[in-house]
Amino acid sequence: MITPRTLKGFRDYPPHIMIPRERIMETARRVYRSFGYAPIDTPALEYLEILSGKGGEESDKQLYQFEDHGGRRVALRFDLTVPLARFIAQHFNELGTPFKRYHIAAVWRGENTQRGRYREFMQCDCDTVGTRSLQADIETALVIHDLLRAIGFEDFRVHVNNRKVLNGLLEVLGLRDCAVPILRALDKSAKIGPEAVAQEMQSAAGLTEAQARRVLELTSLRGTNDEVLRGLEGLVRGSPLGEEGVGELRDLLDAAGAAARPQCFRIDVSIARGLDYYTGTIYETFLDALPGIGSVCSGGRYDNLAALFTRQELPGVGASLGLDRLLAAMEELGMIEDVHTPAPVFLPFFESSRRNDYLRLAALLRTAGLGVEFFPEAKKLAQQLKYADRRGHRVALVLGEDEFQNGRCKIKDLKSGKQVEVPLLDDAAELIAELRRMLD
Amino acid sequence: MITPRTLKGFRDYPPHIMIPRERIMETARRVYRSFGYAPIDTPALEYLEILSGKGGEESDKQLYQFEDHGGRRVALRFDLTVPLARFIAQHFNELGTPFKRYHIAAVWRGENTQRGRYREFMQCDCDTVGTRSLQADIETALVIHDLLRAIGFEDFRVHVNNRKVLNGLLEVLGLRDCAVPILRALDKSAKIGPEAVAQEMQSAAGLTEAQARRVLELTSLRGTNDEVLRGLEGLVRGSPLGEEGVGELRDLLDAAGAAARPQCFRIDVSIARGLDYYTGTIYETFLDALPGIGSVCSGGRYDNLAALFTRQELPGVGASLGLDRLLAAMEELGMIEDVHTPAPVFLPFFESSRRNDYLRLAALLRTAGLGVEFFPEAKKLAQQLKYADRRGHRVALVLGEDEFQNGRCKIKDLKSGKQVEVPLLDDAAELIAELRRMLD
Repeated sequence: MITPRTLKGFRDYPPHIMIPRERIMETARRVYRSFGYAPIDTPALEYLEILSGKGGEESDKQLYQFEDHGGRRVALRFDLTVPLARFIAQHFNELGTPFKRYHIAAVWRGENTQRGRYREFMQCDCDTVGTRSLQADIETALVIHDLLRAIGFEDFRVHVNNRKVLNGLLEVLGLRDCAVPILRALDKSAKIGPEAVAQEMQSAAGLTEAQARRVLELTSLRGTNDEVLRGLEGLVRGSPLGEEGVGELRDLLDAAGAAARPQCFRIDVSIARGLDYYTGTIYETFLDALPGIGSVCSGGRYDNLAALFTRQELPGVGASLGLDRLLAAMEELGMIEDVHTPAPVFLPFFESSRRNDYLRLAALLRTAGLGVEFFPEAKKLAQQLKYADRRGHRVALVLGEDEFQNGRCKIKDLKSGKQVEVPLLDDAAELIAELRRMLD
Repeated sequence: MITPRTLKGFRDYPPHIMIPRERIMETARRVYRSFGYAPIDTPALEYLEILSGKGGEESDKQLYQFEDHGGRRVALRFDLTVPLARFIAQHFNELGTPFKRYHIAAVWRGENTQRGRYREFMQCDCDTVGTRSLQADIETALVIHDLLRAIGFEDFRVHVNNRKVLNGLLEVLGLRDCAVPILRALDKSAKIGPEAVAQEMQSAAGLTEAQARRVLELTSLRGTNDEVLRGLEGLVRGSPLGEEGVGELRDLLDAAGAAARPQCFRIDVSIARGLDYYTGTIYETFLDALPGIGSVCSGGRYDNLAALFTRQELPGVGASLGLDRLLAAMEELGMIEDVHTPAPVFLPFFESSRRNDYLRLAALLRTAGLGVEFFPEAKKLAQQLKYADRRGHRVALVLGEDEFQNGRCKIKDLKSGKQVEVPLLDDAAELIAELRRMLD
């Protein structure tokens, strides 16, 4: 006998967890498609040299890698960005640009599980590749907005920033070459506070105290979007790059606010998102009710996606939905019901001579779009209703020999226990109408 | 520079292939759910001992296995059945029975690619575990029926057989112990013909010529379902097991024919489906237009799913949709359009001062459920329409400064080239109605 167990850092998704997961993934697909992003998929396994090409040492260490049956060094993908780069470089001529794709798939990282991280998780990415147009950045902000609303959130903020603004300020200060250590220090500001950040910028990047103050002045700007924009304008004046960045932020907010709810978009000059990858707009998304959980949808603009695989320059912009974090938030906010079945209607089987009548009725309801579970064994009603209760079915149809003969059907609401009775006709029309009414 | 390429036996799914794949997977989810099957997911990686426990030598050889960062022997799942067995054994108390689940996920096999097989492919399985009731077998036949119809097929046959029938005949003939070599011979009948099968049954299983004739008589029964049932009854008379099998076939056909189209179900005593696993009903599904492509949806009943992991006996019945084979068939039958975008509506961007008006209109259409791709760059209309044509958008909205000022919008059908003009009001109601009409 082998003990049934999963590997450390891996987990099963039973129905009550998988049902809301699938719902969010389907919502993401629907929203991505509504903007014209097209689905792709790529292999879970790739040549090791493809996947380790770009990553830093940290992600290389986390790669699940091994030798396959043919002696090739292979690895499991650790994100969907490197596969996208490889995919576009390989199929560039057939794809054409701009190319908009979404990709929802599992990735694997041999991470330290002590931080509560899993070694297998889903990513839900969308990207527009092959255009420098700010319109693609605007659209990405709108996709995030529509996605959060479609999932069921009303109160959230898409925080936007633009790398060019900080780089512009560094240009003004003559510090363009110190961008990386400065960003590294700024990234810690939420954790260590502004004083320590100022210290680190001086010790690690060689800034003067005055320079460190100017940089902190930028990242500590607060107020309405307009106030922050005006503050930024003052700070980057004289740097074409910085002015461009502020202009892009202004355009993005103007357009996103025109097409969606303006209060959902907020300039936040404190967000940095990693060091080297992003070059323009950056996005992070926070839930008003749970800001501490961190960003649930993030992304940004990059200059060149696939430099390792092709000489073709591929600028683009994208976003990634944090599925697991979002689900954790929804659970905490009571947005997820404890339901173990996708079918709202339960049909007990307690008159075995009527099997075909039950089956015909269930088929009629399914054709009308109603999910129906027909219990597979003719047992006592009470036993079957207990099962339905545990599963989380919404209503049960009570139909015995009497009901069939009299052409009546009882509908029992499994939460309230209330019962209504409707006529049971050949086409089940009244039953279907009443079920729709009750389940809506 | 690293050459972008996929591993041998693996493939990318670009949009025009992924769009129909996703459509079928979504249809499968919808149909499975409509019967109350609940989704689960399990890790791609499991302990090697879990995955290699049951498989024969052949599947063990095909396992992608390696040592992980913690020195554990792990492997990628090669099907969804062993993970289901492990899952149910591990979570038995929370799940309860009957337990109905579907699982749509990738599996990996280091197979010989010369046979045109891929080393990574999707499985779409549904199972009812924990009941011996024939009602679960009936439902499985109905699921296959509804699935094929929902995908778009009208002319297909679900072939059903029952292991007990052949075993009953072997009982009558005193050959119960030779079931495995006899099944192995019968499995080849399509390839080598009945004479060679008879020979093999004599040489490998030690049957007399008369016994071999009786076995072949069973598997060569033809005619209507009723005729075949009567023939089977005669052959198994005296064997309780055989009579039970014939009774189950009769009940299944009666019930499935009452709840779905009777002509879709056919007794086929020639289907065997492997040797040891199935113990009752067996299913294979063939398309009338392409019988040679083989079964597109198969499955059957088994006595004990998880004997390796638990003492709990777990009888069940399930089916698996052959996604890749079905897609190949649909392509051959011209059921798949060459479309590279999920959005039917294309909105060219050629009046850059109207950006926000375009965005507001696109948002209105999306809220109405219409997928709209807004081109990200303000370019010449002809260039954008060429892009839309290549992607396979259905219609383009032609909206320049004139149209905005006059409150009119042109809709261009990208296949026929025909144009219609509709009023463009604030709520876009007439445009939405006309688009719905054109796209339906």
